[in-house]
Amino acid sequence: MGLPDASRESFLTALRKIFPGERLLCGRETIAPYECDALPVYCERPLAVALAASEEEVASALRLCHQFGVPLVSRGAGTGLSAGAKPMAQGLLLVTAPMNRILDLDPQAMTARVQPGVINQQISTAAAPLGLYYAPDPSSQIACSIGGNVAENAGGVHCLKYGVTVHNVLSVRLVSASAECVGEILTLGGDCLSQPGYDLLALVHGSEGGLGVITEVTVKLTPIPEQTRTLMADFASVRAAADAVSAIVRAGVIPAALEMMDKLAISATEAFCHAGYDLEAAAILLIDLDGHPQEVDVELAVVEQVLKVSGATRVQRAADDGQRARWWKGRKSAFPAIGRLSPDYYCIDGTVPRHRIGEVLEATERFSEKYGLRVANVFHAGDGNLHPIIMFDGSEPDALARTEKLAADILEYCIAVGGTITGEHGVGLEKINQMAVQFNDAELEQFRAIKRALDPSGLLNPDKQIPTLARCQEYRALRRSGD
Amino acid sequence: MGLPDASRESFLTALRKIFPGERLLCGRETIAPYECDALPVYCERPLAVALAASEEEVASALRLCHQFGVPLVSRGAGTGLSAGAKPMAQGLLLVTAPMNRILDLDPQAMTARVQPGVINQQISTAAAPLGLYYAPDPSSQIACSIGGNVAENAGGVHCLKYGVTVHNVLSVRLVSASAECVGEILTLGGDCLSQPGYDLLALVHGSEGGLGVITEVTVKLTPIPEQTRTLMADFASVRAAADAVSAIVRAGVIPAALEMMDKLAISATEAFCHAGYDLEAAAILLIDLDGHPQEVDVELAVVEQVLKVSGATRVQRAADDGQRARWWKGRKSAFPAIGRLSPDYYCIDGTVPRHRIGEVLEATERFSEKYGLRVANVFHAGDGNLHPIIMFDGSEPDALARTEKLAADILEYCIAVGGTITGEHGVGLEKINQMAVQFNDAELEQFRAIKRALDPSGLLNPDKQIPTLARCQEYRALRRSGD
Repeated sequence: MGLPDASRESFLTALRKIFPGERLLCGRETIAPYECDALPVYCERPLAVALAASEEEVASALRLCHQFGVPLVSRGAGTGLSAGAKPMAQGLLLVTAPMNRILDLDPQAMTARVQPGVINQQISTAAAPLGLYYAPDPSSQIACSIGGNVAENAGGVHCLKYGVTVHNVLSVRLVSASAECVGEILTLGGDCLSQPGYDLLALVHGSEGGLGVITEVTVKLTPIPEQTRTLMADFASVRAAADAVSAIVRAGVIPAALEMMDKLAISATEAFCHAGYDLEAAAILLIDLDGHPQEVDVELAVVEQVLKVSGATRVQRAADDGQRARWWKGRKSAFPAIGRLSPDYYCIDGTVPRHRIGEVLEATERFSEKYGLRVANVFHAGDGNLHPIIMFDGSEPDALARTEKLAADILEYCIAVGGTITGEHGVGLEKINQMAVQFNDAELEQFRAIKRALDPSGLLNPDKQIPTLARCQEYRALRRSGD
Repeated sequence: MGLPDASRESFLTALRKIFPGERLLCGRETIAPYECDALPVYCERPLAVALAASEEEVASALRLCHQFGVPLVSRGAGTGLSAGAKPMAQGLLLVTAPMNRILDLDPQAMTARVQPGVINQQISTAAAPLGLYYAPDPSSQIACSIGGNVAENAGGVHCLKYGVTVHNVLSVRLVSASAECVGEILTLGGDCLSQPGYDLLALVHGSEGGLGVITEVTVKLTPIPEQTRTLMADFASVRAAADAVSAIVRAGVIPAALEMMDKLAISATEAFCHAGYDLEAAAILLIDLDGHPQEVDVELAVVEQVLKVSGATRVQRAADDGQRARWWKGRKSAFPAIGRLSPDYYCIDGTVPRHRIGEVLEATERFSEKYGLRVANVFHAGDGNLHPIIMFDGSEPDALARTEKLAADILEYCIAVGGTITGEHGVGLEKINQMAVQFNDAELEQFRAIKRALDPSGLLNPDKQIPTLARCQEYRALRRSGD
């Protein structure tokens, strides 16, 4: 495993020529902040950390890694939640966060061309004077970078109406690792939404750093809606709230946001930031409608009617921007609020068909009881993208193990109702076992074939996302044994 | 080239066991209707034509082709416009048109699960009693099949608002040709919009039969809008009409349809079916707005205002469904109408960024004069998807050659302004040379790597869509020589 000492020194010497001074980190202390992403249960100290300032440096680093056979893990801001950016002890960690310039804003084309380290929110901030914004808004949008957004195909609150990352990216520049083109720059996609040839742009979305290193992203900008109005609906049962979600979309309205919180999430949040939620409700829906003011009025009326027919016990319109902000602050504070109720918590990310949300929440409650762990739910209901939050106490000897089993049960229930093991957080290391449940051997073999095609040396972020055949067999046997 | 006689006989004997009776065609006359798709300049008689009735038959045929090393071209209704379904003399043509059953309509999930031979329009017809329809509507929708729609990633008039095929398909069952899985069934995608692993569902869209054979498609259904209203705007210049297209989207309205016709297209159409177009206009825009009635009213007002500011000489609302139908009948009859003006015509399919439409139309006019051939324009302006129609007389000795050069000039101009050589018709054989202009060698090599990964024997629809390196070099040299 890893390079012999002499080679390692040659590798590091060559790296130093590409990344001068403090842009190459080798010391234990300077490396420490890079040992994990936002899922710190997975943690490892890499051989070195390189802070890339240009596409040329990225390409040089990739060529060097190929020359020495050193694995390369790339990352941006490190806000990922599935350990996709966890470094490898014998590998290089290439950080593109310093590549953080907005290269071009084109109001005519309604596009922004940015380096991969640009923070998601900064694009909207920069485009605001043009009346435009970048629609996908992961919860981490004030910290996460656009390169990582592409690598994970990030979602967010407003993706129901405006699509996830792949629907909002026109092109990507990618440093290739493929056989005859190591270190060459590929342009995937272009200024138009459709492209001839195989859709490599879609392929790189959600590929978690395994198919190349992203060095530039051109995103589509959207006109800032003239008006956004917010509704809150209370329900006496989780099932009724879930069914209302389907009914709204069925009525021909696509809300800008359609979020759901259950009783535990409501009470945690209300105690934390007094958002004004009804503590008696079994579930609430928070709904944004946006567009031209009169259009929004029409949609408000339609959605209110659907909510009432669906059994909402109360439907309120936010009276003003202050109330809107308070309601949304509650939603956005739900994770830290829940964090106060428990020494530790673990957030899951599964997606199910919208009309199956109710039964999945009910099953989650049964699993919660089975393992004796509380689960709160706050999630992107419109997309069917669930985020059950398991509360546990890591100091109890078996609590983490029970948490992992509970999480696996929920995710595998999602699969059973036609859903998936991730909506927006990716697979990374966290959910690599569940890939063996989500897909059969022939399907997984296609993924491996794609990986071999574009990264034949297997040096890009290896051992993540796509499990080996042996690992799949092992995990399936484990699950069959009921353990 | 091709099988020796004895092997061919063994191959055909084995085929007959899979496709009994009249479902295997080998005679010259019975094969004749299958020798081309809707671009009959490319035409070839295959070894045999198999009419598949089930997924098992498709899988058996693929395995047999692998065993004998026989190329397999699959097709549905054969309405393609880029010769993507042209058979090969030494190959099998596998027709999935007989697999034409709608397997499931789920009003709760808002999905339809269909066999690949189901006609596009039939899905909407079947879903109508549920208040739902399938949004992508290629011009050939009364004839084209959904399997072909996926293979070409088909577009249509309503794709501006509702997306092209890839945005409306949830999953595909695909018979694999990859190394260890020949003839195995893969499920790509699922009941949710996002999936873990590499996005093979997007990859198969637009892959033109080169990565597997589609045996089932699950599509997303959309609620039928309560109301659709239509606007027609006249302009004194093509440029002004083109600029209005961008301005509408910039104003935050996404029309259900946003089509443009130029003077030549208008006059041809008006003479053909008296749609009520203004013969004095240099260009007209036809705009559909749909949704809840009051929402549509709001959008009508916004768009009318934008059109006036953009210099429309007249803006009309269709007074009733009769007038709507007449206006759209004109648009939909434009191709046959133009066909009456000229012994032959050739329709191009390029896409450019929306805000570059004006200059591309002006360049097209210059090319038209250069080659002495008239060009009419009628196209999906909202998507930037141009369809210049070159009129020529095939009986003139050099007319076809001039037409091809004119087409190449237009497509390469599209590339130069950041556009692409196809919006919805695919590459097939027709535009394989332009792939060498659209992409550099490293990018084309990625396509070849993907093809080798999923079809290592190269038996699926070979020699189309992705040019060989030699072909690229040859074509680029030819273009450089100015020929």
